[in-house]
Amino acid sequence: MSRERLIYLPLGGAGEIGMNAYVYGYGLPGKERLILVDIGVAFSDMDTTPGVDLIWADISWLRENVDRLEAVFITHAHEDHVGAVAHTYDQLRKPIYARAFTANIARRKMAELGLPEDAVQTVSAWPEQVQAGPFTVGFLPVSHSIPESAALVIDTPGGRIVHSGDFKLDPNPVVGEAFDPELWGSVGKSGVRALVCDSTNVFSPNPGRSESEVGPEIEKLVAGATGMVVATTFASNVARVRTLAEAGARAGRSVVLLGRAMRRMIEASMETGVLSEFPPVISPEEAQDIPRDHLMLIVTGSQGERRAASAQLARGKYRGLELAEGDLFLFSSKTIPGNEKEVIRIINQLSEKGVDVVDDSSGRYHVSGHANRPDLERVHALIDPQIVIPMHGEHRHLREHARVAEAGGRQGVVAVNGTMLDLSGNAPVVAAHVETGRTYLDGTVQVGALDGVIRNRIRMALNGHVTVTVIMDEEDEPLGEPWCDIIGLPEIGTSKAPLVDVLEEDLNQFLMRSNQKTLRDDDRLEEALRRIARQSAQTEIGKKPEVTVVISRMR
Amino acid sequence: MSRERLIYLPLGGAGEIGMNAYVYGYGLPGKERLILVDIGVAFSDMDTTPGVDLIWADISWLRENVDRLEAVFITHAHEDHVGAVAHTYDQLRKPIYARAFTANIARRKMAELGLPEDAVQTVSAWPEQVQAGPFTVGFLPVSHSIPESAALVIDTPGGRIVHSGDFKLDPNPVVGEAFDPELWGSVGKSGVRALVCDSTNVFSPNPGRSESEVGPEIEKLVAGATGMVVATTFASNVARVRTLAEAGARAGRSVVLLGRAMRRMIEASMETGVLSEFPPVISPEEAQDIPRDHLMLIVTGSQGERRAASAQLARGKYRGLELAEGDLFLFSSKTIPGNEKEVIRIINQLSEKGVDVVDDSSGRYHVSGHANRPDLERVHALIDPQIVIPMHGEHRHLREHARVAEAGGRQGVVAVNGTMLDLSGNAPVVAAHVETGRTYLDGTVQVGALDGVIRNRIRMALNGHVTVTVIMDEEDEPLGEPWCDIIGLPEIGTSKAPLVDVLEEDLNQFLMRSNQKTLRDDDRLEEALRRIARQSAQTEIGKKPEVTVVISRMR
Repeated sequence: MSRERLIYLPLGGAGEIGMNAYVYGYGLPGKERLILVDIGVAFSDMDTTPGVDLIWADISWLRENVDRLEAVFITHAHEDHVGAVAHTYDQLRKPIYARAFTANIARRKMAELGLPEDAVQTVSAWPEQVQAGPFTVGFLPVSHSIPESAALVIDTPGGRIVHSGDFKLDPNPVVGEAFDPELWGSVGKSGVRALVCDSTNVFSPNPGRSESEVGPEIEKLVAGATGMVVATTFASNVARVRTLAEAGARAGRSVVLLGRAMRRMIEASMETGVLSEFPPVISPEEAQDIPRDHLMLIVTGSQGERRAASAQLARGKYRGLELAEGDLFLFSSKTIPGNEKEVIRIINQLSEKGVDVVDDSSGRYHVSGHANRPDLERVHALIDPQIVIPMHGEHRHLREHARVAEAGGRQGVVAVNGTMLDLSGNAPVVAAHVETGRTYLDGTVQVGALDGVIRNRIRMALNGHVTVTVIMDEEDEPLGEPWCDIIGLPEIGTSKAPLVDVLEEDLNQFLMRSNQKTLRDDDRLEEALRRIARQSAQTEIGKKPEVTVVISRMR
Repeated sequence: MSRERLIYLPLGGAGEIGMNAYVYGYGLPGKERLILVDIGVAFSDMDTTPGVDLIWADISWLRENVDRLEAVFITHAHEDHVGAVAHTYDQLRKPIYARAFTANIARRKMAELGLPEDAVQTVSAWPEQVQAGPFTVGFLPVSHSIPESAALVIDTPGGRIVHSGDFKLDPNPVVGEAFDPELWGSVGKSGVRALVCDSTNVFSPNPGRSESEVGPEIEKLVAGATGMVVATTFASNVARVRTLAEAGARAGRSVVLLGRAMRRMIEASMETGVLSEFPPVISPEEAQDIPRDHLMLIVTGSQGERRAASAQLARGKYRGLELAEGDLFLFSSKTIPGNEKEVIRIINQLSEKGVDVVDDSSGRYHVSGHANRPDLERVHALIDPQIVIPMHGEHRHLREHARVAEAGGRQGVVAVNGTMLDLSGNAPVVAAHVETGRTYLDGTVQVGALDGVIRNRIRMALNGHVTVTVIMDEEDEPLGEPWCDIIGLPEIGTSKAPLVDVLEEDLNQFLMRSNQKTLRDDDRLEEALRRIARQSAQTEIGKKPEVTVVISRMR
């Protein structure tokens, strides 16, 4: 056990799509020097995380071993890779490395929280490399749905690891570097121990399509439109935003960018030089003087987010602009599973306005940013690793991707969050299981997923809430009767009397027959009152609410 | 305005998929005699209706005019058509007509609530007719994904209406009557004023496929399986359940039906004679003695419902049966939008067990129960109505279906819930807008959607809850300090002090500087304390919780 070893430990992103966080380590067991690749967020939902603002991987393990951490590397600027970089900075305080565009976005996040922007350091593309303890790391350009996505070439004394980041194989990505098979092949040539690889699209059987394919289709669509055209996509898909803007410009339309994220991304692209050409844009105010058949709006909110421009336009006027009968609304995007209801709500609101909606169902106006199964097979062959470790996927994706690797004659290993793999031996072995989980940003406070805070909120959402108040006099006898306040519960139950009256009556009956032992003991009394209130409610309304008992004693 | 008229008024189902409820009327304006077609439910979700058990159309308008209501007709036994028949019975108390299978299911619902089963009357298929005031109603057999679905042929002095119910055109539906174009044509021959028509699949461009097409594919799949086979579909899709069971039996497997709904539906099918042939089934207990490669389970929970058999099997053992590596799990079903996350959760749990999952993505193991666009066009032509009124669809479906009708040279009218159409004149006109909405079954209590009960629950889920308690003495001065209890909020805020301490301190400061005018006035004091608590929480945790203020006065 005293030999140095190379380890891989996903803390987030392996067993889910979202909140990526991967640790690599090299050194003597338990003393490995570490790097963190990506520290992203996931988004909350009402089912499991009501009221939560952001979610990221629980980095307790990393915090406990922070003296061993050398640096943080960010592959690209999608929220699920960079979103928690500022929220976790205080706990890690290590240099953060990224390519220029990603660094630009990361610095904005640092600035928003009043953190030092210079913690983020810009790295040029491969063959430039960064030294971080025993690691030598280079950023290999890959195409994806955001500028300057990178795979990481991680050289260690235990061999080379290629961490793919999110990627696709695009010979013509509209913005950024084209897929370069020779470059990838050269990285593989010197021998690769493990390819840690994006699994998102492993179930897509056909080769992925190029970003450049959607342009002509979108142009045709816009050219044929007779009213205002509105198109939505992810703001970070700068290539798509450019394609949409150019389609508008070619059709003689003035282009308006709507939504904060849209403007911020274009700004970052301009600042970092990844976007040199972009049609002229006008402001929403200027747009109001232009006939609607000469307008093209490119807007945020492709996932139906309630506050984004798409949802606002579907509901009514937004920044002086309003949709009308005969306008065209294009979703140049895919709906992420879980967002269907929100997107469909918007489509129906647009339908009520007489707006024609075109979505991704034809496959003509959107292409994915991830590598499909044949692309994955091609990359396995080019990088030629001994081991393939699928990441960036739910369990079903990881399992399938491992099968693809095995079918190609390589070792494929499924390692979910918390699984520490030792990659030093002939075959990877599980070295440890580390406690992992999720951290919630709730308002301005970081809360652990298992703290019970959110569980209690879900219970109140399902069952409503009762406050029971009793005052006990100096002799520990009830002073007056108990009373109840309800929230989120029907006022009248099956007996047709007010629910609070029924509860108060039952609680009073209980107090009248209770002995001093119960009445003097706060815990015992509280528990009993809670039980009575819940039983009484169950009988009256068929539901057991959450109960807060407040006992005030005059003694 | 004194001429008798024929009216159509959807209360639910027009502008949404779910909770169908359609009213037809004939007579002098405001004195029309009425019938209700279907009274179904929709299901709750955490986003909009946490803790709600069932949802149906607000029938206030019908209740106010209940003396004019003649009868209720149920087209088929899907929950979104029959689900609220018992819950609303006390308010309507009219005869309920349905075909045998549907009536069987409706009677079970009546019995569950202790209501008279004989309120439900069985009607034979067309040409049998029921007289209900000025209406003569016949049940025309249609194929769908449940036995004995019916279109209603509604004859009135104002002309014939065909209310399609849910349907597809299936020449070989496995269970029940095949599509009979001659019969449909004969119904149209005598002239049809309006076709009120299912719009669910209007966006599906190809002709619908027959239920009989999935059998051979499923047989091939089951025959090739090496471990246990588990298949899930809607329990009410009796034809599919039979197809699955036969595929199992042909592959030499013993068939087990798992899930209460599955057994209930097969039972109802047997009782009413719609299912005469069904392979022998064994109990879960018997199955434990049979090798897993000789077993075929047919289970509930195709939509990922947490308590259904699919979810239970994905989590672990269920009724003594457990999935293992190499087993096959088939979703012979479509995932309804909004249920993706739950279904995907199950697929990942199965993946963790090493179970291979086959879903609907290939299109081989499931066909829809609704008519696609070309089928709708065919039915328009066969029934040959003057007016097509799309129903059973979201707004986008209704609008598209109306377009299809217009393209066929007919009048197509979009009428959403609450729109009363007068169908008497040359063209349909909007006669009135009726207040509509949703009624919630919450535990055992019926709650109006706008009562605020659910809104308050959602607020607690998003923002947490604080109870503020103050006791005022005989002179209206605070007796001691105020105190706070929190639920669903972090215990420690940004100042690192306990949140309740910070809140109590701020509330105490406020009380100390308040004048008698505030301290004596309950409303004023409550409002002020709530405001302080919310502001204090906002500063401390970045969130404004819901607040219950309890003021106890000693005077």
